[in-house]
Amino acid sequence: MTPALLTDKYELTMLSAALRDGTAERRAGFELFARRLPAGRRYGVVAGTGRFLDALAQFRFDDAALESVAAFCDDTTLEYLRDFSFGGDVDGYAEGELYFPDSPVLSVHGTFAECVLLETLSLSIFNHDSAIASAAARMVSAAAGRRLIEMGSRRTHERAAVAAARAAYIAGFDGSSNLEADRTYGVPALGTSAHAFTMLYTGPDGPDEPAAFRAQVAALGVGTTLLVDTYDVTAGVANAVAAAGPELGAVRIDSGDLGVLAGQVRRQLDELGATDTRIVVSGDLDEFAIAALRAEPVDSYGVGTSLVTGSGAPTANMVYKLVEVDGRPVSKRSSHKQSHGGAKQAVRLAKPSGTITEEVVFPAGRPPADADGGRALSVPLVRAGRRVDDGGLGAARALVSTGLTSLPWEGLKLSRGEPAIPTRLVAP
Amino acid sequence: MTPALLTDKYELTMLSAALRDGTAERRAGFELFARRLPAGRRYGVVAGTGRFLDALAQFRFDDAALESVAAFCDDTTLEYLRDFSFGGDVDGYAEGELYFPDSPVLSVHGTFAECVLLETLSLSIFNHDSAIASAAARMVSAAAGRRLIEMGSRRTHERAAVAAARAAYIAGFDGSSNLEADRTYGVPALGTSAHAFTMLYTGPDGPDEPAAFRAQVAALGVGTTLLVDTYDVTAGVANAVAAAGPELGAVRIDSGDLGVLAGQVRRQLDELGATDTRIVVSGDLDEFAIAALRAEPVDSYGVGTSLVTGSGAPTANMVYKLVEVDGRPVSKRSSHKQSHGGAKQAVRLAKPSGTITEEVVFPAGRPPADADGGRALSVPLVRAGRRVDDGGLGAARALVSTGLTSLPWEGLKLSRGEPAIPTRLVAP
Repeated sequence: MTPALLTDKYELTMLSAALRDGTAERRAGFELFARRLPAGRRYGVVAGTGRFLDALAQFRFDDAALESVAAFCDDTTLEYLRDFSFGGDVDGYAEGELYFPDSPVLSVHGTFAECVLLETLSLSIFNHDSAIASAAARMVSAAAGRRLIEMGSRRTHERAAVAAARAAYIAGFDGSSNLEADRTYGVPALGTSAHAFTMLYTGPDGPDEPAAFRAQVAALGVGTTLLVDTYDVTAGVANAVAAAGPELGAVRIDSGDLGVLAGQVRRQLDELGATDTRIVVSGDLDEFAIAALRAEPVDSYGVGTSLVTGSGAPTANMVYKLVEVDGRPVSKRSSHKQSHGGAKQAVRLAKPSGTITEEVVFPAGRPPADADGGRALSVPLVRAGRRVDDGGLGAARALVSTGLTSLPWEGLKLSRGEPAIPTRLVAP
Repeated sequence: MTPALLTDKYELTMLSAALRDGTAERRAGFELFARRLPAGRRYGVVAGTGRFLDALAQFRFDDAALESVAAFCDDTTLEYLRDFSFGGDVDGYAEGELYFPDSPVLSVHGTFAECVLLETLSLSIFNHDSAIASAAARMVSAAAGRRLIEMGSRRTHERAAVAAARAAYIAGFDGSSNLEADRTYGVPALGTSAHAFTMLYTGPDGPDEPAAFRAQVAALGVGTTLLVDTYDVTAGVANAVAAAGPELGAVRIDSGDLGVLAGQVRRQLDELGATDTRIVVSGDLDEFAIAALRAEPVDSYGVGTSLVTGSGAPTANMVYKLVEVDGRPVSKRSSHKQSHGGAKQAVRLAKPSGTITEEVVFPAGRPPADADGGRALSVPLVRAGRRVDDGGLGAARALVSTGLTSLPWEGLKLSRGEPAIPTRLVAP
């Protein structure tokens, strides 16, 4: 199924109008960026680049797509769409790079026609994936090295769930419950059982948790994770160790006061000799709850709703703006939405220690002298329609990790604040 | 692409464990419901039913899917999955029906194996679509009969955008910018142009808005909508009427103080003789902003971000719980998450005027005597694996409309409050 119709109608009506008078062929530059971070956030994480480049390669209007737009497109437009494939250039921040207000996350150059068609799809992908990765990175820093499992598929659109798992993995999560994310992107799939499984073992005499645990261990081995809070956590832990022995891989607690329970369960496990059995907690966790559990004997966190909804910021609010026509900077002047014309590039400045200090955004090709030695942030992604190889998810994960390390310490605070570093916009 | 892997791994590991000892074949009943509405919401709107039934019909494990789960599924499980198609029964609230806390929105009956496999996918669809429809319905009631256009595709995952357009349409929106929602679901596609189109007409002498408007009118006719706030709204309106004449279909304002501008633009249009030219406003609208513009001469609202993010409640937080095994009610007893065992049905009671007063949820087949005359809320959706015909999106739209009319007046208030009617849970 082509992604070409994952597009707003007005991209095609604009195309149609521009094709009539030849302006469609003007050379255009569009940029994708966020005017500001979500309220109180100190940094953002670019995600979606790989998915955008995948979609770009498939962005073709097949017969079914053409038929469905024929009602409002004239023949010239339909002919253009039939032959369409993007032939321009794309530069952008590498996937996993941090971003700040006005960072030129993506720059698209080509004819107006080919660039305008990509507006909706590029925004959908970057706004969703970056929102999730940005929230996930806060959870990763809050978890301070403990394992994180994404398990929010059920709380978001079924296809968004796959992208969310991918974005969380980029940000540093260890895996996801989502099977399609494993198949499509190689995100490690994790998970063992739900309360329903334990409750399935209910007979005429009532619930039989030991039978459920024995069945799970028989199928999945003693290294499995047993969910111990279906009926009573203390009895659950005893039943779990009885079923699997002290080699039991892990127990999961999904309800109650997780901090109190984690300590209690740890003591019980140790007393039962299950000293290597890990504790997984889940249930309405967000970055604040994760941080609050730092002092408790928790080994892994399972995060659902708050991850897939961006922990209060479900969209990154990036925009895709025309900045250049035939080499001339353009900008609109409607109130509160002034944009800066002209193609831009950016470098990030850092202290010798590696701590970043400033993002400098300047007219493309004209870096200010005092930005010497800054790290250039844009990389080529597409040249004349052909994708430039990148390092995949592994490289993106490494980039997030490096990025978080480079933040000034205030940048990692979970409380609301200003962007961790200022953005300096150098006028054309 | 099969939806079968839009599933959490643990559904398959549970299946695998249950297949080993025969418990997979036990008769199970699962229910999908919300323990509570999002904070402060007074009602919810069920959406996703049609999409869930579409997905259920395609829920098959093809070779690629089987290969990707082979690493952790034994042969018995793989064989089961290869032959899988759901053969059970599904009952539920019709799409477009209102729901309240504990409303049994969906009841799924079959073997444990076939029901457990549907958990993640059903939740993803209902949690997403119902969140959007519930927010959209508030906007529809705030718009008080004025037209609403969904234009949020760019702010959410590209496939979620299609489902969001569909959900908004069910709730009463007039159309969407999304082309795939038109193609797949027949949601009317709307939209004409963005600021980029106006800015495309920039030459050596600077911007040329009149040229842009003439080009758009030439391509799309005088009935089109011209976006007038790229540079200066007053000049924009003058240029628009000059380009199209007083027959101009509409102007759109996307920035600034929309209330003030709408009045000013209305007066200007009338003075120019464009008395039938409509005014469309857009730009960060939500149900509160829509309501605040009620006194202004606005004809249509374009809604983006707040719609596709559920206006503060991006997920409906529905759960899918095992309630019955071999005819015996089951429930878990972990703290704060107690669920009520046994299959349930519901009726909604109303005054003779039609205003609803109470939702009564009772053990299936045993309605309390005082619920006589209530409207039965569950309808058959699937029988022995076969979909029961429903009325499609038209019926769902009608049901939302009727539902909103049936609410007590407090139920339509936009402020935070309690559910519009109480839910009475009749004990088994």
